[in-house]
Amino acid sequence: MADILASLRSLMASQSPPLDALLVPSEDYHQSEYVSARDKRREFVSGFTGSAGLALITKNEARLWTDGRYFLQATQQLSDQWKLMRIGEDPPLDVWMSDNLQKEAAIGIDPWCVSVDTAQRWERAFAKKNQKLVQTSTNLVDEIWKNRPPAEINPAVDHPLEFAGRSVAEKLKALREKLSSEKARGIIITALDEVAWLYNIRGSDVSYSPVVHAFAIVTLNSAFLYVDKRKVSSKVSSSLQANGIEVREYGAVSSDAAMLASNQLDQATGVNFGQNGVCQNDTCDNDLIWVDPASCCYALFSKLDANKVLLQQSPLALAKALKNPVELDGLKNAHIRDGAAVVQYLVWLDKQMQEIYGASGYFLEGEVTSKKIPETMKLTEVSVSDKLEGFRASKEHFRGLSFPTISSVGPNAAIIHYSPQAKTCAELDPNSIYLFDSGAQYLDGTTDITRTVHFGKPSAHEKACYTSVLKGHIALGNARFPNGTNGYSLDILARIPLWRYGLDYRHGTGHGIGSYLNVHEGPHQISFRPQARNVPLQVSMTVTDEPGYYEDGNFGIRLENVLVIKEADTEFNFGDKGYLSFEHITWAPYQIKLIDLSILTPEEIQWLNRYHSKCREILAPYLDKNEMEWLKKATEPHSSFVGHMVAT
Amino acid sequence: MADILASLRSLMASQSPPLDALLVPSEDYHQSEYVSARDKRREFVSGFTGSAGLALITKNEARLWTDGRYFLQATQQLSDQWKLMRIGEDPPLDVWMSDNLQKEAAIGIDPWCVSVDTAQRWERAFAKKNQKLVQTSTNLVDEIWKNRPPAEINPAVDHPLEFAGRSVAEKLKALREKLSSEKARGIIITALDEVAWLYNIRGSDVSYSPVVHAFAIVTLNSAFLYVDKRKVSSKVSSSLQANGIEVREYGAVSSDAAMLASNQLDQATGVNFGQNGVCQNDTCDNDLIWVDPASCCYALFSKLDANKVLLQQSPLALAKALKNPVELDGLKNAHIRDGAAVVQYLVWLDKQMQEIYGASGYFLEGEVTSKKIPETMKLTEVSVSDKLEGFRASKEHFRGLSFPTISSVGPNAAIIHYSPQAKTCAELDPNSIYLFDSGAQYLDGTTDITRTVHFGKPSAHEKACYTSVLKGHIALGNARFPNGTNGYSLDILARIPLWRYGLDYRHGTGHGIGSYLNVHEGPHQISFRPQARNVPLQVSMTVTDEPGYYEDGNFGIRLENVLVIKEADTEFNFGDKGYLSFEHITWAPYQIKLIDLSILTPEEIQWLNRYHSKCREILAPYLDKNEMEWLKKATEPHSSFVGHMVAT
Repeated sequence: MADILASLRSLMASQSPPLDALLVPSEDYHQSEYVSARDKRREFVSGFTGSAGLALITKNEARLWTDGRYFLQATQQLSDQWKLMRIGEDPPLDVWMSDNLQKEAAIGIDPWCVSVDTAQRWERAFAKKNQKLVQTSTNLVDEIWKNRPPAEINPAVDHPLEFAGRSVAEKLKALREKLSSEKARGIIITALDEVAWLYNIRGSDVSYSPVVHAFAIVTLNSAFLYVDKRKVSSKVSSSLQANGIEVREYGAVSSDAAMLASNQLDQATGVNFGQNGVCQNDTCDNDLIWVDPASCCYALFSKLDANKVLLQQSPLALAKALKNPVELDGLKNAHIRDGAAVVQYLVWLDKQMQEIYGASGYFLEGEVTSKKIPETMKLTEVSVSDKLEGFRASKEHFRGLSFPTISSVGPNAAIIHYSPQAKTCAELDPNSIYLFDSGAQYLDGTTDITRTVHFGKPSAHEKACYTSVLKGHIALGNARFPNGTNGYSLDILARIPLWRYGLDYRHGTGHGIGSYLNVHEGPHQISFRPQARNVPLQVSMTVTDEPGYYEDGNFGIRLENVLVIKEADTEFNFGDKGYLSFEHITWAPYQIKLIDLSILTPEEIQWLNRYHSKCREILAPYLDKNEMEWLKKATEPHSSFVGHMVAT
Repeated sequence: MADILASLRSLMASQSPPLDALLVPSEDYHQSEYVSARDKRREFVSGFTGSAGLALITKNEARLWTDGRYFLQATQQLSDQWKLMRIGEDPPLDVWMSDNLQKEAAIGIDPWCVSVDTAQRWERAFAKKNQKLVQTSTNLVDEIWKNRPPAEINPAVDHPLEFAGRSVAEKLKALREKLSSEKARGIIITALDEVAWLYNIRGSDVSYSPVVHAFAIVTLNSAFLYVDKRKVSSKVSSSLQANGIEVREYGAVSSDAAMLASNQLDQATGVNFGQNGVCQNDTCDNDLIWVDPASCCYALFSKLDANKVLLQQSPLALAKALKNPVELDGLKNAHIRDGAAVVQYLVWLDKQMQEIYGASGYFLEGEVTSKKIPETMKLTEVSVSDKLEGFRASKEHFRGLSFPTISSVGPNAAIIHYSPQAKTCAELDPNSIYLFDSGAQYLDGTTDITRTVHFGKPSAHEKACYTSVLKGHIALGNARFPNGTNGYSLDILARIPLWRYGLDYRHGTGHGIGSYLNVHEGPHQISFRPQARNVPLQVSMTVTDEPGYYEDGNFGIRLENVLVIKEADTEFNFGDKGYLSFEHITWAPYQIKLIDLSILTPEEIQWLNRYHSKCREILAPYLDKNEMEWLKKATEPHSSFVGHMVAT
């Protein structure tokens, strides 16, 4: 590790101008959340494996900014050479730089790995002390990374209409209408899931996200896909061609962006412009190039004439978020199979915990003395999560996991995005909470579910916390709200029951989920973050409902279902706005043993009983007799009778 | 009315340049919400008496923009010559102007009656079509207003420390520290309540707000009060002088603002600058003039060098909102006396309704056939509100009402800011809901309370609506939340129970309240409006909790208490943020007859029982035996037992 920093620093010094600092973000050329092994540059330099974080290397220091999900994990993974900067608590990068770095410092960045938004924000902030953001011509990390994994040639495949629900032709037509209405003559699409969604293709270049490393450019008349051509079979190639999409080499996007800027891209294909690049028809008014500042890299933006750029959220973000009926059906079906896998896993785990560890099990509350288990019989966070993957893999349309399974015992469950490693992970413990947050990619939909369980005797405090998290989870999932309401407003519903006790969680409450695409999808979200105000929730969006509570060193709790937004069947319709509600599409029981029924309201208990009854009904076709018996017991209805006599 | 518009139009035509349109806002020179009779220009031209609205007169049209509180009232009050523009539904003024008024139109405004924020926003919007905002040199409405009420000479009085809690010297010191830290050398204070608060003076120039028509300028070394000197007694004058405040004529603020801009104001008083206006000490770095863009009029702003203006919320807004312990004590005491008056009123009204109208009364549900009552015995919205004022006037420290009492029967209760007029108001009706929203100015605090009652048999629908409003009122008032939470986030808590049925209300949920000052006070608020995000709620702020539901033509419901923000006594303190909660300081019962107890949760019933029990305890010293018996009955504890057996 020391070698890495030393090598980087000597490389920084040799640049022209010499760099006083180097920024190494987590993202790849497409601003992806999950990146391929060869793109994990920030992990390589820092040792921190979390999905989000920004590394800064100066001549004497190394600092890593990350968010609340990763504070604990980063503390454990960063060496002494690194200092953790907690987002929301420590000064943000911009402030730190101007407070701590000298005037006129040169700060290097690979312009392919940073978004327009971020680069411009940094430039403005650095300008205060005449510091300068320097675009390096190569990626300095790549230069010193000796064993960098090679690029793989994974095939791109068609995503058929029976799952996609909407043809490429329809999607291109809608996109071009949007371009026209915004006076744009072209758009550069850099987000991998947007490229995959628009062209109805999928791939396996990135773990967990079935996307292809590719860019796209769409103009009013042409469409291009920039991809390593070896990935494109003749079958895929011909269906792309049928939709008027020309396949070009991945690297060509750079020069084509410049061509697009100078009005030469369509000319080159002879479609729209005459010999001198003079517009030949009525599309001449459209002279802007649309670029999403949050996903487009600074390198491509720099090829354009800044005055002719429409910097605005990509129209594909919302189009992709509004699931069509085929996608909604697929998502619901995928979640049913996924729920069955989760129940099978719980049944299996319950049996193992009793047999191997002598635990009282999922249903009973009994203490057990920890005993020494023979090494070969031990259950570990990784071994059980492999089993969970096995149950999922046995289901139709399974294509892999949608993110690294979080399988975490006791204190590890307090690490919000914990990712157990085979060699170092913890053993299961009948006296500790066990949290698993996992999901899969199925051809018909992406899944994401979290449950928290205890196979022994949970403490009263653990129960109180679990119940507060559950109350928030129900309050949000049960909400009705008028059209126009955003996820910033709704976020508080999941927190209020926790706030009552002075508890909270350091992450957002919900994210969109893809249709056999990214497990985290925008543009909407349910969160306290200002961005959550930008997009109102709309019918046919998906969103997760996942409040939690984490006690460092002790335990963590999170409950997560996927919801679909639908019209609410309200008695009235004040203001003629139309009211919305959520449909839960995740099916797996909550552990009654962890619930303090006396602090649930009658309505909450009623909701729980109904949800559990639906679980039985919906999962029955996928379970054997033994599993079904377990599920019946797990979903027995409960009454609040005793807990709710009110002293008057 | 036709004459008014015709006169205005001919005056508009005679201007140089001739005006194509004239804007007439509701506000006075101080951007006040409540204005004196002679400042009711918008009411004079339009006939609409609501507190908020903007009139636009073009050559052929007259339009009035107002918000949801006033849609119904405006419809009733505007003549055929006027068209109502509903804010939130119809295009906003900026958009309407550029869509409907010709290019290069000249749009007149009195720059004393419009804030910097608003004027600049309009200028930007109008520029799109090269339309121009023209500052008129006189107020055109004043010129044609024949019987405009004369200016009154009301005395300014000291607001003693026993009520103010903080000396002028302390307030000036804190203000100057704030100026220094923001690199400002002076501030122009235009909001009447900020002037009154800073200098610990009160007056009676405006109905309902105990303020003096005055401006203030404070520099690092000097302080000025601009006021009609005839209002300042020698006693007040000497206490101002003792605090280094120089009294100047009201009109002098204009030239003094210009002097301040050119660094001559302090020089004139020989304090800080030498012969050439060159700074003589270490305050030279401070070269900005602080102006609150939301309250400072465009006329005064225009006297300044725009490059040397700090356009930022006045530091007095937050300082005034954070009540000191003496103010908090005063507010609590004032609300107890005020609550006693409200209960006395309810006891009296209950008796009248039974005796005169044969109503079943406050406690029983009985239908009654409407009967003809002799004219002299009739109760009207105005006659009963006079009685309510009488009960308040009998209390210690009473100084008048804090806003026009909303006393409204049946359909009138659906007019959110209804103001009954003696000649036209409705008669009380034992078969209709009666809503009263009222408050008073006491020397030790300002009050504001709303209750909704029924003296006959409310319908199931009315009960369901009342109960939903109550649930929202309790959910908000009962919330605990971490420091940093704003009123935009909390607003949804009051709406969720209404949204469940597709119900809502078209107004914010809460506003700050003054300490013997304005009944509506910022800078915080609880609302869906974006401004509510700007200021987190903080310990010792006051805020109302007033959800409602309004059914046009039928009835209206609103419940309002004043809350004080305090530290919450939570079991945990996650993130070390500190948690906050509300303390109710309003005391008056909710009508049990209007509550459907079966849809309250046990916690809500428990809250209600506790609140009612405190009402009894706190108001007892102020009530006679008969009143106390009524209150005991009104505040009997209830159980949710029957309503809450949950089917399993």
